[in-house]
Amino acid sequence: MRKKIVYKFIGKVLIGFSSLFVFPILIALIYKNSVIPFLIPQLVSLLLGLILNRIKVNDGSLFAKDGLLIVSLSWIIISLIGSLPFIISGLCDPVDAFFETVSGFTTTGATIFNDVEKLSKSILFWRSFTHFIGGMGVLAFVMAIIPLSSKDKSMHLLKAEMPGPSVGKLVPSIKKTLFYLYFIYLALTFIEFILLLIGGCSVFDSLLISFSTAGTGGFSLLNSSIATYSLFNKIVIGIFMFLFGVNFNIYFLIMMKNGKHILKSEELRVYFFLFITSIIIVFFNTYNLFLSAFDGLLEAFFHVSSIMSSTGFSIGDINIYPTSSRIILLMLMLISACAGSTCGGFKISRLIIAYKSIKRGFIKIIYPNSVDTIKFEGKKVPEDTVRNNNKFLILYIILIVFIMFIVSFDGFSLETTINAVFTTFANVGLCFEISNFSLFSDLSKVLLSVGMLFGRLEIFPMLALFIDLRKK
Amino acid sequence: MRKKIVYKFIGKVLIGFSSLFVFPILIALIYKNSVIPFLIPQLVSLLLGLILNRIKVNDGSLFAKDGLLIVSLSWIIISLIGSLPFIISGLCDPVDAFFETVSGFTTTGATIFNDVEKLSKSILFWRSFTHFIGGMGVLAFVMAIIPLSSKDKSMHLLKAEMPGPSVGKLVPSIKKTLFYLYFIYLALTFIEFILLLIGGCSVFDSLLISFSTAGTGGFSLLNSSIATYSLFNKIVIGIFMFLFGVNFNIYFLIMMKNGKHILKSEELRVYFFLFITSIIIVFFNTYNLFLSAFDGLLEAFFHVSSIMSSTGFSIGDINIYPTSSRIILLMLMLISACAGSTCGGFKISRLIIAYKSIKRGFIKIIYPNSVDTIKFEGKKVPEDTVRNNNKFLILYIILIVFIMFIVSFDGFSLETTINAVFTTFANVGLCFEISNFSLFSDLSKVLLSVGMLFGRLEIFPMLALFIDLRKK
Repeated sequence: MRKKIVYKFIGKVLIGFSSLFVFPILIALIYKNSVIPFLIPQLVSLLLGLILNRIKVNDGSLFAKDGLLIVSLSWIIISLIGSLPFIISGLCDPVDAFFETVSGFTTTGATIFNDVEKLSKSILFWRSFTHFIGGMGVLAFVMAIIPLSSKDKSMHLLKAEMPGPSVGKLVPSIKKTLFYLYFIYLALTFIEFILLLIGGCSVFDSLLISFSTAGTGGFSLLNSSIATYSLFNKIVIGIFMFLFGVNFNIYFLIMMKNGKHILKSEELRVYFFLFITSIIIVFFNTYNLFLSAFDGLLEAFFHVSSIMSSTGFSIGDINIYPTSSRIILLMLMLISACAGSTCGGFKISRLIIAYKSIKRGFIKIIYPNSVDTIKFEGKKVPEDTVRNNNKFLILYIILIVFIMFIVSFDGFSLETTINAVFTTFANVGLCFEISNFSLFSDLSKVLLSVGMLFGRLEIFPMLALFIDLRKK
Repeated sequence: MRKKIVYKFIGKVLIGFSSLFVFPILIALIYKNSVIPFLIPQLVSLLLGLILNRIKVNDGSLFAKDGLLIVSLSWIIISLIGSLPFIISGLCDPVDAFFETVSGFTTTGATIFNDVEKLSKSILFWRSFTHFIGGMGVLAFVMAIIPLSSKDKSMHLLKAEMPGPSVGKLVPSIKKTLFYLYFIYLALTFIEFILLLIGGCSVFDSLLISFSTAGTGGFSLLNSSIATYSLFNKIVIGIFMFLFGVNFNIYFLIMMKNGKHILKSEELRVYFFLFITSIIIVFFNTYNLFLSAFDGLLEAFFHVSSIMSSTGFSIGDINIYPTSSRIILLMLMLISACAGSTCGGFKISRLIIAYKSIKRGFIKIIYPNSVDTIKFEGKKVPEDTVRNNNKFLILYIILIVFIMFIVSFDGFSLETTINAVFTTFANVGLCFEISNFSLFSDLSKVLLSVGMLFGRLEIFPMLALFIDLRKK
């Protein structure tokens, strides 16, 4: 059977995954919570991993489809195992637990809990930790510690895993690339952690908020999200949400002291432009709703940063925002930030490439003989990439509409339905009208979870799975 | 100056257009209304036309951009002149009159009048007549009577005018093509007119409803639209709305007794499938809101037909529909019916081509060496067409979002804003939450009017105009 290698690979992933439960177990021991909710999934993951890893594979080569299946199946199996702590703790039923865990790993941050403050420290840690794990992609994480037998194998995996059109490879070896990406990820998280401590947060709060920011997740420890933290910390979090939306290649270039390339990055410039413009518009659209202009500016800055980076923290009630701000924030959900970051949405780079291809197409109508290649970040974009880019955007919208249609049968208003689907599919977590997802039907919760996975894995791995299932 | 030929062409269009005022003048005489509101625009159109037509042109060749400009400028100038009857009659201010006229010519049917029943017979006639004129395109209409100096000229015009990707030319000569299309258009209108008479409508009502159906417009004579007409007439109108959404090539093939080709038409089959499926879903989603299942079915049939064909007649209050039905109807607005008909939206054919290109793209990811051409209606679709198709869809959505953003500053809810923009851009006219557009700001009315023109002319002619204006 062709599938053997897929299962074997998933086995390796699960063995790696099981080791991660050490951290919540440690937290449970420190805070005298039960370790059972984490020990059981750890054992399940380890045993299942060992069994799958024993599968004998004759032909070690991986095809594109195998890579897609490994990615999608791994995310689903890890989400199922990762939901066990919630179920064993008796906090919710399996569907809710699955939604919460998918929301964690996909770094969405939409929750089914209407009162997170009653959750134990270890469960709170687990929620934010799933963001941290999900952030760079479970597989990218595991791949760094799994010995790879050939370069091609991992390329197929990475191709499916890495968000957005790849701008350029940082270093020739994939292992090294992952090492650098991971180093940047940890370093940024650590800096934020220290700054939050300075700003007056407890160690526990600082750690969890840093985890949630790093993964651009958005799970928080308080029902009011970030509203009660100090002004300094609000600004720190606001800035770090923006920073985690930047393409990690940029940080690598800074590390390599290649700073002049940074200013040339088209995507970064558009990201910054959209960021500032959105803050200005939201500010002028809402400042009269606040006690002072400064409060209005702070909220505009924080919420634009939160939604654009697809994090989903909040410092106030965004439901007071008028329609214009709502439209901006809903669009920012879908667009999100840079490729090669932990953000959600369809990424700014895709919008830039679509814009350039539309512009070229229009010029061709007027001057039929004009021949022009599309350049992005100073490099020629292959025609295949342009075409796939535009198809991706159309498919993205079609899937959102499809999920909206099914979810609409829950009987919520059109606006609520739009918000629910946008915020989950784009892996944001924060949205208008909905404070938690517990009121949605089980069917909707499962579908929104699948939507989160579709969004996070950039559609194709999940599509491969569904088409594979259909063929059986 | 390069523009001379553009103005000369517009002059010819205006001379042709001025002759059309004979009909409302006739109606005004019959019903003893004033003829002044129609005489003045007739003279304006004739004089302006004669002046522009006197321009001496040295080089008679038309470039693609000239064709686009002729189309967009003609529509705008004709809309401006066509709004004079409303202004002269003192019914509304110029912005409202422009909105109403653009809504008429683009066969949208969105109105700024909150009480159409107080309008005079001649004004009611003019409103429905603008649908009829707009239906097949003012230019297609005028081109049939303007002697063409070369084939190429008209092709450039037609390229911009004809809705959707052209499926195939009917006959080698454009004049003949237009003759046949026009014959079909008139014949269908006449059959509907007769059937409505049989169903108990007055001659005047039958005529105006037939005009509005033919253009898939939707202006009506009563505030309750079609609700008070006989059951027979409701069914007749429901069927004819559907029929005017069919590609006119199909009718031509029927005329030529080439019936077996009809069943092979992919677009027609998808149109029929979407039509029936939508009726079934809307019916099961809403039948409990009606006194009898038959009433529910009739409303589902009528409103699906009305929105899919982009007509916009109604026989009941669609605001009682739940979210699922709203999503279906909003999507049907954008998709609409077949290319080569008088419908709005982006046409089913574009959706089919996008679907096929996405499917092919996905297969290529899994089997990188697969080479596959896309076929539509049994013919290979050129790669250029596929690419332009997908770009068009993305641009369509970007423009809708942009207009939504500006209109949102009027302070209506997100849902109302979405409805206002969808129904105008897709040239439907009927929508949820809004019974008339008088409450929108002047800026929004102008922008929604521009949106109607963008939608009707399939974006590019209007885009050429805006880019041309910017360059000056």
